[in-house]
Amino acid sequence: VRVLIVYAHPRDDSLCAAALSRAELGLSRAGHEVEVRDLYRLGFDPALSRGEQAPPAESAEATSAVADDVRLLRWAQALVFVYPTWWGGQPAILKGWLDRVLVEGPALACWGRVNRTRPTFGDVRHVVVVTTHGSSKWVNALQGEPGKRVMLRGVRSLVSWRARSRWISAYGLDRSSDTDRTSFLDRVEDFFSSL
Amino acid sequence: VRVLIVYAHPRDDSLCAAALSRAELGLSRAGHEVEVRDLYRLGFDPALSRGEQAPPAESAEATSAVADDVRLLRWAQALVFVYPTWWGGQPAILKGWLDRVLVEGPALACWGRVNRTRPTFGDVRHVVVVTTHGSSKWVNALQGEPGKRVMLRGVRSLVSWRARSRWISAYGLDRSSDTDRTSFLDRVEDFFSSL
Repeated sequence: VRVLIVYAHPRDDSLCAAALSRAELGLSRAGHEVEVRDLYRLGFDPALSRGEQAPPAESAEATSAVADDVRLLRWAQALVFVYPTWWGGQPAILKGWLDRVLVEGPALACWGRVNRTRPTFGDVRHVVVVTTHGSSKWVNALQGEPGKRVMLRGVRSLVSWRARSRWISAYGLDRSSDTDRTSFLDRVEDFFSSL
Repeated sequence: VRVLIVYAHPRDDSLCAAALSRAELGLSRAGHEVEVRDLYRLGFDPALSRGEQAPPAESAEATSAVADDVRLLRWAQALVFVYPTWWGGQPAILKGWLDRVLVEGPALACWGRVNRTRPTFGDVRHVVVVTTHGSSKWVNALQGEPGKRVMLRGVRSLVSWRARSRWISAYGLDRSSDTDRTSFLDRVEDFFSSL
């Protein structure tokens, strides 16, 4: 399986960084091909520009700015996101990746009626999210887990409703123990080594 | 009432830009004081940096980077967000404003147990969201309106559960008529002129 990992955390010593390493370890052990987009390291600019917000006919600018991301999307069979949940959702740098890449022009085409779109990449069969939460599971449940909805309803429905999805998350990190963290990392590696 | 408007749209000819103007018109007619943070015009950097993600003791960097925003938060009695809904939520530039400003250090303080925080600004009595959606109301309902949860559960609960909230939104813009848009703008102006 060809796997594209989109990764967003500013610190190398974070639990997300450790989760990324363990995901890569599991995937390489199982013999999968992996490409990582480390958005902080790439200095990815998350703000959709004026030109990109223009109607698609004018948005050649959009397509070229995210050409590498679109090429990798077309190549990928599994789409993996690794990030900390802040304010219930994706860090801005990753939200910007969705805003700029998964839009008409770069990665989507219009289909029939005006607000129907389909991807111009075709072969994604897995959408996987690995994410960490400072607050507890019930606080997140109370807030409605907005970031989970964006990924598992929004992004997955765009990719394909037939794509399999998986949500691997750690909650309550503000008070977690080393055992909690280790068990989360083990779950991550286990999942990817049997993808 | 002292009103802080946080505005995020890259285009001056957008419906959001028109909504901002009408909000300002309504507010000034009613004699309120208004400050606008136009995030695109300010070139606001939405990516939380490595230093800002450090524990609060080390995050003097965080506080100074968003000093103007924090000063305005402390001044404000009403907090208004005007933005287009993309991928079910706030544009990255606005998500980054939440990520960088509404955190421990700049605008929040720890309170008692480790994952309880309280704002260091005190007097916000209204949280108002004005937002536009390309897709229809039922598509957004199906996706669970993640951006609405972030604002009306997450942000409002932080500010104060006693703060009054209002959600003023336009849906289905990809197929809307001039009448729909005009009626949306009228609703915006009416609401703010009677705040």
